[in-house]
Amino acid sequence: MSKPVRIGVVGLGYWGPNLVRNFRSIEGATVPICCDLDLSRFQRLNAQYSDLDFTTSAKEVIEHRDVDAVALATPVNTHYELARIALNAGKSVLVEKPLSLRVEESEELVELADLKGLTLAVDHVFVYSPAVRQVKQIVDSGRLGKLFFIDSVRINLGLFQHDVNVIWDLAPHDLSIVDYLVGRMPRSVSAFGSVHAKKDIEDVAYLNLDFGEGLIANFHVNWLSPVKVRSMIIGGSEQSLIYNDLDSSERIKVYDRGISTDSDEEKHKSLISYRTGDMYSPNVSHDEPLRLMAADFVRCIQQQKRPVADGRAGLRVVKILEAAQRSIKAQGGRVILQD
Amino acid sequence: MSKPVRIGVVGLGYWGPNLVRNFRSIEGATVPICCDLDLSRFQRLNAQYSDLDFTTSAKEVIEHRDVDAVALATPVNTHYELARIALNAGKSVLVEKPLSLRVEESEELVELADLKGLTLAVDHVFVYSPAVRQVKQIVDSGRLGKLFFIDSVRINLGLFQHDVNVIWDLAPHDLSIVDYLVGRMPRSVSAFGSVHAKKDIEDVAYLNLDFGEGLIANFHVNWLSPVKVRSMIIGGSEQSLIYNDLDSSERIKVYDRGISTDSDEEKHKSLISYRTGDMYSPNVSHDEPLRLMAADFVRCIQQQKRPVADGRAGLRVVKILEAAQRSIKAQGGRVILQD
Amino acid sequence: MSKPVRIGVVGLGYWGPNLVRNFRSIEGATVPICCDLDLSRFQRLNAQYSDLDFTTSAKEVIEHRDVDAVALATPVNTHYELARIALNAGKSVLVEKPLSLRVEESEELVELADLKGLTLAVDHVFVYSPAVRQVKQIVDSGRLGKLFFIDSVRINLGLFQHDVNVIWDLAPHDLSIVDYLVGRMPRSVSAFGSVHAKKDIEDVAYLNLDFGEGLIANFHVNWLSPVKVRSMIIGGSEQSLIYNDLDSSERIKVYDRGISTDSDEEKHKSLISYRTGDMYSPNVSHDEPLRLMAADFVRCIQQQKRPVADGRAGLRVVKILEAAQRSIKAQGGRVILQD
Amino acid sequence: MSKPVRIGVVGLGYWGPNLVRNFRSIEGATVPICCDLDLSRFQRLNAQYSDLDFTTSAKEVIEHRDVDAVALATPVNTHYELARIALNAGKSVLVEKPLSLRVEESEELVELADLKGLTLAVDHVFVYSPAVRQVKQIVDSGRLGKLFFIDSVRINLGLFQHDVNVIWDLAPHDLSIVDYLVGRMPRSVSAFGSVHAKKDIEDVAYLNLDFGEGLIANFHVNWLSPVKVRSMIIGGSEQSLIYNDLDSSERIKVYDRGISTDSDEEKHKSLISYRTGDMYSPNVSHDEPLRLMAADFVRCIQQQKRPVADGRAGLRVVKILEAAQRSIKAQGGRVILQD
Repeated sequence: MSKPVRIGVVGLGYWGPNLVRNFRSIEGATVPICCDLDLSRFQRLNAQYSDLDFTTSAKEVIEHRDVDAVALATPVNTHYELARIALNAGKSVLVEKPLSLRVEESEELVELADLKGLTLAVDHVFVYSPAVRQVKQIVDSGRLGKLFFIDSVRINLGLFQHDVNVIWDLAPHDLSIVDYLVGRMPRSVSAFGSVHAKKDIEDVAYLNLDFGEGLIANFHVNWLSPVKVRSMIIGGSEQSLIYNDLDSSERIKVYDRGISTDSDEEKHKSLISYRTGDMYSPNVSHDEPLRLMAADFVRCIQQQKRPVADGRAGLRVVKILEAAQRSIKAQGGRVILQD
Repeated sequence: MSKPVRIGVVGLGYWGPNLVRNFRSIEGATVPICCDLDLSRFQRLNAQYSDLDFTTSAKEVIEHRDVDAVALATPVNTHYELARIALNAGKSVLVEKPLSLRVEESEELVELADLKGLTLAVDHVFVYSPAVRQVKQIVDSGRLGKLFFIDSVRINLGLFQHDVNVIWDLAPHDLSIVDYLVGRMPRSVSAFGSVHAKKDIEDVAYLNLDFGEGLIANFHVNWLSPVKVRSMIIGGSEQSLIYNDLDSSERIKVYDRGISTDSDEEKHKSLISYRTGDMYSPNVSHDEPLRLMAADFVRCIQQQKRPVADGRAGLRVVKILEAAQRSIKAQGGRVILQD
Repeated sequence: MSKPVRIGVVGLGYWGPNLVRNFRSIEGATVPICCDLDLSRFQRLNAQYSDLDFTTSAKEVIEHRDVDAVALATPVNTHYELARIALNAGKSVLVEKPLSLRVEESEELVELADLKGLTLAVDHVFVYSPAVRQVKQIVDSGRLGKLFFIDSVRINLGLFQHDVNVIWDLAPHDLSIVDYLVGRMPRSVSAFGSVHAKKDIEDVAYLNLDFGEGLIANFHVNWLSPVKVRSMIIGGSEQSLIYNDLDSSERIKVYDRGISTDSDEEKHKSLISYRTGDMYSPNVSHDEPLRLMAADFVRCIQQQKRPVADGRAGLRVVKILEAAQRSIKAQGGRVILQD
Repeated sequence: MSKPVRIGVVGLGYWGPNLVRNFRSIEGATVPICCDLDLSRFQRLNAQYSDLDFTTSAKEVIEHRDVDAVALATPVNTHYELARIALNAGKSVLVEKPLSLRVEESEELVELADLKGLTLAVDHVFVYSPAVRQVKQIVDSGRLGKLFFIDSVRINLGLFQHDVNVIWDLAPHDLSIVDYLVGRMPRSVSAFGSVHAKKDIEDVAYLNLDFGEGLIANFHVNWLSPVKVRSMIIGGSEQSLIYNDLDSSERIKVYDRGISTDSDEEKHKSLISYRTGDMYSPNVSHDEPLRLMAADFVRCIQQQKRPVADGRAGLRVVKILEAAQRSIKAQGGRVILQD
């Protein structure tokens, strides 16, 4: 039996208490200490977990001798600094998405984790959701054929972030899903958006990724939508799929409708033969993604394995976000991504 | 009482027979003659309308002395030539959307109609739909406040056009609606897309229009979607609206949820106060848009008035389409529109 | 090749013109003459079908020597009399649902048709719909297991009938579907309802049918509902099915969720093991049911076959309706049906 | 400031821990002790609430000197006995629905509470939900006009109760809502159902209540449905309303479509004039009903007030349930209710 992993949680805003609850519910993990600048946040937690220690110093948590790993649920602009300190202190790290605000920072963290032989994970939590796992299996099975397009919509009347725009706030979820499904980097990124509520902070935005080989992906992220939508259409040459995270009874639908093209030279003129067929909606388990991610983080530390959402996955998403940021400030100019 | 307007219908594919039926059902209009290269199409019609004449020559219809106006339901690449002949022959013209394939052709047709004092109309049929009319009233009433974004989705498993891509096929509908609602030209256009089924013919595409003053509009048009969607979100500073053309019981929903921003310098840091309120779905009449458009065309000829969807509206849409075409071939490069 | 069947259509209200259109579109059928007391109804039709004869006398149509069969689209209280005259005159008959207002009248018509060797059909049009046909196949395949319950809802803001209540107006559709699916008569009928808009005419009603062997069916019919619903849940021991006639993209859904019961004596105390599984929505063709029914009527006359919705099916539905009528007037008392 | 109310919770199955959590979160209440026959259920709770006492004896909780009131979350067949003991011991009581299995038991409890001047409440929790409160306001405002019908559906793939059928399990929710909205007892009850999974335990059932004055209410409760539905249509002479508890964004819809009948003698023959109008969906707060009920229970004890869902409301529901039970065993026979 493995030694329990002792995790210090830094930041008790929205995400932190969920991490505390989930890590405490996993066999093989404990949460001895947590921190926040705001004591009242801890007090609410402490009513439930009377044996939980508290400090207002992130450094104290990170360097605590009873802490093997830290989970960072702090503002994005602190991720790099805190993760670096933790890795240097020999602690494994789980970082709230996105990994950091800059590609070079993310690269440094990835290298540092490799060098130290520590686990660096990013909470790309959807990659652990049973629905996305099932979508991945369907894509990998080849049932959809060649992927033609991915159309992703994540919109709502939003909780504004103070420091980042809607792309940095919402798109990491969808970019991490698409990264997981497609398995390769896009060749270019373009982004459009507009600013309404807060100076310089885009609250409506569209991203367009060109993956080459005929595959494009479009992302609509929006804090000003009157309705909440969380959906993704994946169009393939053989079948297509819709993943609607808000449809609790039919989260995944696979449509047996593809388009088949003749390969002969007559293609341009010939009529396209459509196949229109059945729809199938597999049962999806209700396991909580955050719990699965927490368990994976603990297992990877214990067994020295690489998590699905590791530092490299976090880095790939930051590369796309940084390119999108440059594009949106250039009013939609296309940014080519280096491998 | 006005003299009845005698309309010749050119082209009996999908759209032509609908025009025959609608013009015949309007008081003040007759359809004495129609044409198509394919006789069998006429025979089906003739079973219903035994007094309808037929020819295989478009020119014969256009120049017929019992014809006051012609309705062109022919492939896009014939619009300019046939409309020009008709206007020169002193006949008013209704053209299937889009008006033509090139801006300069469209401009010539607009000028020619002006010069001859004839009616030139484009079948931007949605501009006549009761739902879009009601959306226009709501926008004009100021209830939504300042317009922030328009997000339009028109996707389905499509009927491919042989000669144009999905933008030229589907986007004219949405562009004409947005042109009608916003009342000004966008400042720039960007378009992305990809090609799968037929060489050089995009079957998935996204358009982004920047109208200035914080208003952007995005259009998703797609022939490869497993599901049919026809919806438009209009986000405003005070209220927002969703127009879903496939929801026959709640075609328009107005959401009393806006975001209000403080105008003072503290804006950047201050919390955004959201208002979350009621939703209201007005009753929408079921009148057939095509019939309303046909009636308007006849009335405009009789009373020498300008139709809502006149040649200038057709020209504005062609300007955007032509810019989108240039952008999509330049992989999303931004195209600035001249006024 | 068979001789064309010449059909006289009696009644040109809502249903009659549809019958004219459909019979005229079928190879092997003609409609030489029709009748209505209201000439203006004919004039609208005649604009389309210039070779159609007209009379105001139903008897003239029925006894016309160029008429082989009559289609009765007249008020319910005229069905028996007109059908009897037609059968006696040697003409096959298609009657709008329900077959008649009384069991003994319906029995007489069935016997008369048998005696004369003529086709007697009732327009239980849903029995011809591709969706109901597919539901029938699924039920017959045994996939659902033993049928446990059928829950049918047919409600809307209605068109009141002047002469019959909401049960006689709407329930024949659902009763004919369930008769077709279950294939046996219920053992008893109970009906509840209430009267609001017109004296003695129930506008909201519920029917409960007990088919024995654990199968019950409930029907909600309603002219006062703010929304339109057309749906049927069929619960089985192995799988369950939902048929929603208004969901044009997913008209049939089959749920792989049954309940399995242990057969041993511990059943009462044991935990029930639920299986919760996948959902499957087969593609459903869009063929028009009325056209399929019209074609079947013609084919049955030509080939002396029995239509799916024959006089006996019509009689079974009238038996249930008559029992429901007695029950509703007895405030829900249970009425036992004789075989 | 009032003295805190000390509540003992009896039963830690599904409901009990929710009561513990909610009572502990309310100012003015404490939960010093709880009990269950199963120690492991307590242990899970104790991990969160380290200061909570435990016993396996209900009697010990009830008679505990530090307990002012007891909340009974035990099987239905224990309600009467435990509540009686508690009231006799001078403790106020909150009972899980339904109040008890027999009318005479419920009457005795109501009288006992009155005699002792104690608060007797039933957890008709929906009566505290913001949505039902809002529906009540709309009904009371007279906007709907005269109530014509209520159609309630509460179906799902269920958790079987061991001791009661689906009516006793699910219908109390809807009966308590309708009792709250209508404010008078029905004149008669009929119930149908069938038994599939467990001997003598109906798992599908329909209740029909006749309230007189043209108002009927129908309830569909079902443990075998492949889909979960929680909805209620309330049809009125002026407007109608749909309350769909599963539609989190449009929980209440008010339809401005009524039917207006002429009062003159021509009524029977005249055409009904339908009004078809707008729909309005008010914003509904997300406050947790259980918390509101818990707070109301505490307030009523402190201020000696009568809760909305008091013993009398519980008794009325039990009267209907008992009548339904007699009816269902008599295969739908109508049971007249005494006032």
